[in-house]
Amino acid sequence: MQHWVLTLNCDDRSGIVHAVTAAIVAAAGNIAELQQFSSTDTGRFFLRLEVDSPVTRGALLAELNPVAERFGADITLDVAGRPLRTLVLASKAEHCVNDLLFRQRAGHLPIEVPLVMANHPTLAPLAEFYKVPFEHLAVTNQDEKAAFERRVLEVVDEHDIELVVLARYMQILSPELCEALEGRAINIHHSFLPGFKGANPYRQAHARGVKLVGATAHFVTTDLDEGPIIEQNVRRVDHADSVAELQSMGQDEESRTLTQAVKWFAEHRILLDGQRTIVFR
Amino acid sequence: MQHWVLTLNCDDRSGIVHAVTAAIVAAAGNIAELQQFSSTDTGRFFLRLEVDSPVTRGALLAELNPVAERFGADITLDVAGRPLRTLVLASKAEHCVNDLLFRQRAGHLPIEVPLVMANHPTLAPLAEFYKVPFEHLAVTNQDEKAAFERRVLEVVDEHDIELVVLARYMQILSPELCEALEGRAINIHHSFLPGFKGANPYRQAHARGVKLVGATAHFVTTDLDEGPIIEQNVRRVDHADSVAELQSMGQDEESRTLTQAVKWFAEHRILLDGQRTIVFR
Amino acid sequence: MQHWVLTLNCDDRSGIVHAVTAAIVAAAGNIAELQQFSSTDTGRFFLRLEVDSPVTRGALLAELNPVAERFGADITLDVAGRPLRTLVLASKAEHCVNDLLFRQRAGHLPIEVPLVMANHPTLAPLAEFYKVPFEHLAVTNQDEKAAFERRVLEVVDEHDIELVVLARYMQILSPELCEALEGRAINIHHSFLPGFKGANPYRQAHARGVKLVGATAHFVTTDLDEGPIIEQNVRRVDHADSVAELQSMGQDEESRTLTQAVKWFAEHRILLDGQRTIVFR
Amino acid sequence: MQHWVLTLNCDDRSGIVHAVTAAIVAAAGNIAELQQFSSTDTGRFFLRLEVDSPVTRGALLAELNPVAERFGADITLDVAGRPLRTLVLASKAEHCVNDLLFRQRAGHLPIEVPLVMANHPTLAPLAEFYKVPFEHLAVTNQDEKAAFERRVLEVVDEHDIELVVLARYMQILSPELCEALEGRAINIHHSFLPGFKGANPYRQAHARGVKLVGATAHFVTTDLDEGPIIEQNVRRVDHADSVAELQSMGQDEESRTLTQAVKWFAEHRILLDGQRTIVFR
Repeated sequence: MQHWVLTLNCDDRSGIVHAVTAAIVAAAGNIAELQQFSSTDTGRFFLRLEVDSPVTRGALLAELNPVAERFGADITLDVAGRPLRTLVLASKAEHCVNDLLFRQRAGHLPIEVPLVMANHPTLAPLAEFYKVPFEHLAVTNQDEKAAFERRVLEVVDEHDIELVVLARYMQILSPELCEALEGRAINIHHSFLPGFKGANPYRQAHARGVKLVGATAHFVTTDLDEGPIIEQNVRRVDHADSVAELQSMGQDEESRTLTQAVKWFAEHRILLDGQRTIVFR
Repeated sequence: MQHWVLTLNCDDRSGIVHAVTAAIVAAAGNIAELQQFSSTDTGRFFLRLEVDSPVTRGALLAELNPVAERFGADITLDVAGRPLRTLVLASKAEHCVNDLLFRQRAGHLPIEVPLVMANHPTLAPLAEFYKVPFEHLAVTNQDEKAAFERRVLEVVDEHDIELVVLARYMQILSPELCEALEGRAINIHHSFLPGFKGANPYRQAHARGVKLVGATAHFVTTDLDEGPIIEQNVRRVDHADSVAELQSMGQDEESRTLTQAVKWFAEHRILLDGQRTIVFR
Repeated sequence: MQHWVLTLNCDDRSGIVHAVTAAIVAAAGNIAELQQFSSTDTGRFFLRLEVDSPVTRGALLAELNPVAERFGADITLDVAGRPLRTLVLASKAEHCVNDLLFRQRAGHLPIEVPLVMANHPTLAPLAEFYKVPFEHLAVTNQDEKAAFERRVLEVVDEHDIELVVLARYMQILSPELCEALEGRAINIHHSFLPGFKGANPYRQAHARGVKLVGATAHFVTTDLDEGPIIEQNVRRVDHADSVAELQSMGQDEESRTLTQAVKWFAEHRILLDGQRTIVFR
Repeated sequence: MQHWVLTLNCDDRSGIVHAVTAAIVAAAGNIAELQQFSSTDTGRFFLRLEVDSPVTRGALLAELNPVAERFGADITLDVAGRPLRTLVLASKAEHCVNDLLFRQRAGHLPIEVPLVMANHPTLAPLAEFYKVPFEHLAVTNQDEKAAFERRVLEVVDEHDIELVVLARYMQILSPELCEALEGRAINIHHSFLPGFKGANPYRQAHARGVKLVGATAHFVTTDLDEGPIIEQNVRRVDHADSVAELQSMGQDEESRTLTQAVKWFAEHRILLDGQRTIVFR
């Protein structure tokens, strides 16, 4: 028996669930989880299934592919819990990288990390402790930046990377790289978007006197800080908290929000509906 | 087109979703929402569907009943959003009753309340404002208590009541009434169960110095404060809060927790799995 | 014995607390609560005290005034728990007004409301239930708007109003009225500012696919949606929630956030530090 | 200029704040923070001050000691931010230890850890990564347990330990050790006390079908799971979460709750009022 995760999206019409479940019955499968959503904004239909089935991947697809064709659907099929090949980009801050690697090692986060790349050498000992290869490439000018990004694409290719995580990587990606990674790169922004876009959000938050600070995990797009939002969390602050304290407290929200988003992505729980995300929790 | 809510529960086995969706296809139905859960604790399977279908209730059941028989399943079928006939029991405190009636009138809570019954006259003006009939029956001894409970059952019968809500009704129900109302009576307990069962939970919470106080909505059973939990919420408190302040702050949690539980019940989102509830949110 | 609330703010320097507590000792007072804050942003010092003292207001001020003069401080002195004279402005939505009046009547909110003014007649029965005078003045053009605002100022004057609450009053106040009410008018904005300023914030939030919606209570200033923030709350939402559902869920956050801000104001817990608020909780 | 933290507690009476602030003025001090609380439960008065003063510790105490004597007060005086000498006890689980050491190293937690002691060797590499000495002493019988506890007291003595943290140390301390460490040992219990005391709280929580799970940091006393509560947090769960998932999710609450309690203790923010804690946040 193998435990599978199946996702499907297509234009919404009648009979999709029935057709998919027929295919699963034909593959001697049993449905362990089923979630669906019909978007009234876009008219799209989204489905996520966890299925136990004794047949091979090929045999399962042989049943599912005709259904996908009939409805013009995109489908994905993966072994549930298979670790996703994940490239982590970082700079100096270690809280997000530490949280990802700690939970990965503890068995709570189904990813494998063939490499951490950073534009500073700071995180080398952390990566070493977690036994993850680490690569440092300085980014102090446009040429180095271009080299860093070429190396990212090379690594994505070499390791067949499925997800790129910007774990407080403090460089703006070029539009070319954003496009190349579309739908498979997640960033953490250290504010509750759409408030406080851009630089120094905790400074902005302090000046504005907000009573909650937060963090937002979102897909990377060419439109900076405007990619589809995956997850957000906030934390209460008050007038006595300095910018440095907001920053220190905010880091907890950043790391847990990013880790949560990565976990959902690795579990194939996130589907894109235009500029919005469907998250089947 | 009618929008239906269908729930089903039975022993878990393969093919249930496929069979149900086949019935829905046969009734020209379209699935708007589908949630399911397989309980590993009890081996039961739970399903909730929202379906758009042009056929009559009879025609829909003609398709569904054979499926239910085949799987030995309990099914319920209701028009989505139909107001549930709800009897409210109260004493003096008005925050829960006010919240229920305010939201009902605002169109946010699909219930209709043919009667508020109370063992004190205090809430008469509130009921009058919301144009809900109010009945006061004193409960100062065992005879009056028995009379009150007989009247409850009479009202349940007369008005074909589907849900009884104990909105801070400060009397312990007799085992007979608990049994008669099993699965359709919801109580609000003013603590985060299983902490602080019994009387004066805010006083207990203050003495113990807890840092959060909460409320629990649960089904009424003969085992006081031990019925299946439907919903819980908490609120942060600190050392400076007196018992009276805990009580005042806790009332917000009580009313929102009870109202939430009633809403889910009225939307047929709550199913029982032994001593636990399945809540399809 | 009388229970007093004292607030003081002045430029920060040494010896202020000592001087104030000396004055209180001289007035045979006992300190029940003391909170202070030194703002590194503005160099201002803020103090709030609750004091039990047997002497008259005059005798207490005779001790405190020299201290205030010495430090160039603004002070306020009030009987703790005295209901603040509060004018409520509303339109059609009743959730905020209902919450304010319900809690006021339950004894949880130290305000008295001599009048609810609205540009729609909708809330008349609600006001009547709570036995609060209600005045309806249509605002369908600039002349009516000017008349409404003149009437506001007249009422503020007549009833010696200390606080004006915009409880989802859906008109933009003129700069003149904003200035006249500066520091004593509180608005509720139905978003988590500074995100989603302006009209239709729930529609904006839905389009952007945020995972939390919120509400912000702030002081009214001529700079729309930019006044000092007093309190904020959020609530988790997901992709399945329609704009109407966000709105319905958001209303809970709006009413509890506004009521909280009004309560703190009435308890003299809010002090202004430039564009930020000090809230001594 | 030195930044000091001063705490004081004594029977409540008039003039304490005035007398203390007089002593501070005499020491040329400036008050940066002041919090106080009068307990109506016990009649005790609690005060915490942060003070900038140019004089020596001796000179400051020369002013404060007469005040303490006059009011029969216990006082503590420490340099603000001085790292507290902290002994960490652990077993196999690493999430709490990792969180403590990560934040300590990041400069967010004012402790220094001369030793991690554990009854399993599992955490040796983690301690090594953080460059903290690690000692493993097996506890498989009563003799070994007694030896472990003797070693704890020896370490407390040798390193002049100010705080012992039970970071998921899975052994019950002997009454003798509890007493020896009274008021300076903090434990994390993996439930929202007083619910689910004792073993396997997540299993209990699952069986009871609660909708929130939580963690409680409390002082260690001879009365197991009944020591004064310092901090509590909860997290929403639902019917679909298995015991293992509750456990995994609960670990986040455990580590952040324990770290928070340790931080407040190290900042001298926690004072004991009978069975309750005063936490000056």
